[in-house]
Amino acid sequence: MATIKPSIPKGTRDFSPAEMVRRNYIFNTIGSVFKKYGYQEIQTPTMENLDTLTGKYGDEGDKLIFKVLNSGDFLAKVPAEKLSANNSQQLTPSISEKALRYDLTVPFARYVVMHQNDISFPFKRFQIQPVWRADRPQKGRYREFYQCDADVVGSDSLLNEAEFILIYHEALSELGLKDFTIKINNRKILSGIAEIIGKPQLIVDMTVAIDKLDKIGFDGVTKELIERGFTTADIEKLEPVILLQGTNESKIENLKSVLQDSAVGLKGIEEINTIISYIALLRPQTSDLRPLHLELDITLARGLNYYTGAIFEVKTNEVAMGSIGGGGRYDDLTGMFGLKDLTGVGISFGADRIYDVLEELDLFPEVTSESTRVMISNFDHNAETYALPLLGKLRESGINSEIYPSSAKLKKQLNYADDKKIPFVILIGSEEMESGKLSLKNMKSGDQQKLTIDQIITVLKA
Amino acid sequence: MATIKPSIPKGTRDFSPAEMVRRNYIFNTIGSVFKKYGYQEIQTPTMENLDTLTGKYGDEGDKLIFKVLNSGDFLAKVPAEKLSANNSQQLTPSISEKALRYDLTVPFARYVVMHQNDISFPFKRFQIQPVWRADRPQKGRYREFYQCDADVVGSDSLLNEAEFILIYHEALSELGLKDFTIKINNRKILSGIAEIIGKPQLIVDMTVAIDKLDKIGFDGVTKELIERGFTTADIEKLEPVILLQGTNESKIENLKSVLQDSAVGLKGIEEINTIISYIALLRPQTSDLRPLHLELDITLARGLNYYTGAIFEVKTNEVAMGSIGGGGRYDDLTGMFGLKDLTGVGISFGADRIYDVLEELDLFPEVTSESTRVMISNFDHNAETYALPLLGKLRESGINSEIYPSSAKLKKQLNYADDKKIPFVILIGSEEMESGKLSLKNMKSGDQQKLTIDQIITVLKA
Repeated sequence: MATIKPSIPKGTRDFSPAEMVRRNYIFNTIGSVFKKYGYQEIQTPTMENLDTLTGKYGDEGDKLIFKVLNSGDFLAKVPAEKLSANNSQQLTPSISEKALRYDLTVPFARYVVMHQNDISFPFKRFQIQPVWRADRPQKGRYREFYQCDADVVGSDSLLNEAEFILIYHEALSELGLKDFTIKINNRKILSGIAEIIGKPQLIVDMTVAIDKLDKIGFDGVTKELIERGFTTADIEKLEPVILLQGTNESKIENLKSVLQDSAVGLKGIEEINTIISYIALLRPQTSDLRPLHLELDITLARGLNYYTGAIFEVKTNEVAMGSIGGGGRYDDLTGMFGLKDLTGVGISFGADRIYDVLEELDLFPEVTSESTRVMISNFDHNAETYALPLLGKLRESGINSEIYPSSAKLKKQLNYADDKKIPFVILIGSEEMESGKLSLKNMKSGDQQKLTIDQIITVLKA
Repeated sequence: MATIKPSIPKGTRDFSPAEMVRRNYIFNTIGSVFKKYGYQEIQTPTMENLDTLTGKYGDEGDKLIFKVLNSGDFLAKVPAEKLSANNSQQLTPSISEKALRYDLTVPFARYVVMHQNDISFPFKRFQIQPVWRADRPQKGRYREFYQCDADVVGSDSLLNEAEFILIYHEALSELGLKDFTIKINNRKILSGIAEIIGKPQLIVDMTVAIDKLDKIGFDGVTKELIERGFTTADIEKLEPVILLQGTNESKIENLKSVLQDSAVGLKGIEEINTIISYIALLRPQTSDLRPLHLELDITLARGLNYYTGAIFEVKTNEVAMGSIGGGGRYDDLTGMFGLKDLTGVGISFGADRIYDVLEELDLFPEVTSESTRVMISNFDHNAETYALPLLGKLRESGINSEIYPSSAKLKKQLNYADDKKIPFVILIGSEEMESGKLSLKNMKSGDQQKLTIDQIITVLKA
């Protein structure tokens, strides 16, 4: 076997024990909140049939799907002329029938349609799994990364939207974030605005342009709107809407008067109001919405062609970072697989970005239940023999513990414990064996105490 | 977008909420025991470079590796003659540079070598991730399935072997299994036996044959041994060893006398004895080994070319099923990636088979912390408005809870709760709203009680 210098594909990552503890902390926190709100976990296969995925993400998306080569003699059934044409794109379906999951949404739609007879609707599911994209890797963008999605299908109740806002608030707060903004908008409001200025057919152009307000400012948006076929008269009408400021309540009041002649626009405002009143009912302890960081932002569009009602986006204000979550309501998710008129709404957490935010803000807990709590030193055969029954006792008490597996210098053993972030070490020398009082060393403070094994168990379980 | 009838690739599976709860129960139980013994989790990417995997699993294994097609115009750099040769196997490396993880062992070896400067040895890691094999799918054999591995590298202490036996015992017992056997053998004993009969070069042929004793009986083994180059005189010497019966102690005594002239064979026996004495020390509450279900089985070989010391295999005796776990010590895992002389030992749990065993024996817990604990009914707008603050209160108390998201007939709502295996439903009608005493329905017994929300919280948290 030739020796090869080991590496991994670009855009992919190994996760070390320290990283896994932190990643699990994020996934478990988000997953627990999903469960608290009645969402249930599912998983779908890593590989989907290629035709399940093709055509769902646009032409650019199709190119970024990782295709899996058929097994065995994959060329056997390929006609000679197809091979000699030397066209990769045309050859692909002949030599590849499977592909790696590109997101969690299309597999979820496929799941719902395939299992529709076993599902009790409304179906509240969450899913935390990796996805793969053949994107150009760069800082913060990977070819394998996790998505954390929750969706409910088969319920048009706006209570779902209200609960998603609370889920965002609860999960991010539990992770220690303090200053973040949950932005909300509604496709119907955007439709109403396009209707009012008399250009309903240009709604996509309008929203694509005003979505960039943050980045290019009002002058930039104006320029783009004109390029996209709007007149200066249109923009005059749009200006007060785009530049809407103030509290959610005053924005809603302003929009009500702007949109008074648009039935769909008023419907959008009514939906926002209903969501807000649901939130107030669900939080009886306070009627104050401010701690929710909820902000009506009518420039928010995200995948507009997809969303039909509420649109969400979450940003942290503590670190410069793109959105750390988003979602919205869609009315025809499963239509692509032949199941019509099933409405749904869902959200997603950007776990990799949240990881970077928590790291930058130093918000990860220092000790978790994942880690080894105590290591017993190992100086010689006698000490090892003395220690093993104590190790058995520690584990019997449910304490994650280990012994250094062979005798070695103290420094080496302490370095090992330090690298593994083990908070306590039990030192056993001849004095300890004689007295039955063991030295418990706190690795952070350096303090040492002489205690019996039962006292140590009490300390470690505290 | 054309409507396509959705399906998934053969040999792959969707996991429903009920299945996920059970799978997580198995993974969490095994993972907790790994952690209790000081093992730390890592994860490696789904895709490895193809040349990391090729040549590690034999020619048959290489064929079963799923290869990922290069992105973009993958034919561009393929020479015309290579394409026209029409040879799938030769073309593969030109159009595919990446492949799906085939097991957890080779990626672990690659990880250790790549990160050797960041790792504090001995490195105790566990890994629970899916692997993919282009095998012919059949009952119980999938193309995507999870492996659960724990390994320690950089320690030759037999304490590790002893702890792995305890890990098997503890994890399987916690999962509710009562009658299982942890078989142990040692490559050195097998070497000693081959040495004693004067055929050390035929050790692989010998072990492949006697490994089949369970299936083909002693006559079958005899036939195979003769085909593989052993004489009847050899087999006469082998017979008492192959048919060794009795307690571990008596087997060891017998082997000691058979192997008295083989240094390596005696070393193997000594290792078994050391492991057993470590186990006794680690279990101070009892010196009785019987509850450990430990059995010395010298016909046990598993991937012999690979293992250099201890060999493990676990079988359940309650259900007809192949092995549910296995492992052993290897002396040169990382040599294939250029890091020599790093010894290691590891075990693996067969999670899919354990799932089938627990299901057949009805050992899955009925209620877990994963599920919704209570659902509030929803009859009309008034009841909903009354219910939402109570829902907020339940969740504030840490209780997984949900409200049926719109008003519907009672039967439909109770069916929904039943399908989701929600154990309690709170019914709120006009009487309940007036009195503040809510009806708590136990979905299993059908019993109903009138209680305040605070009383309900107490009941549900019990």
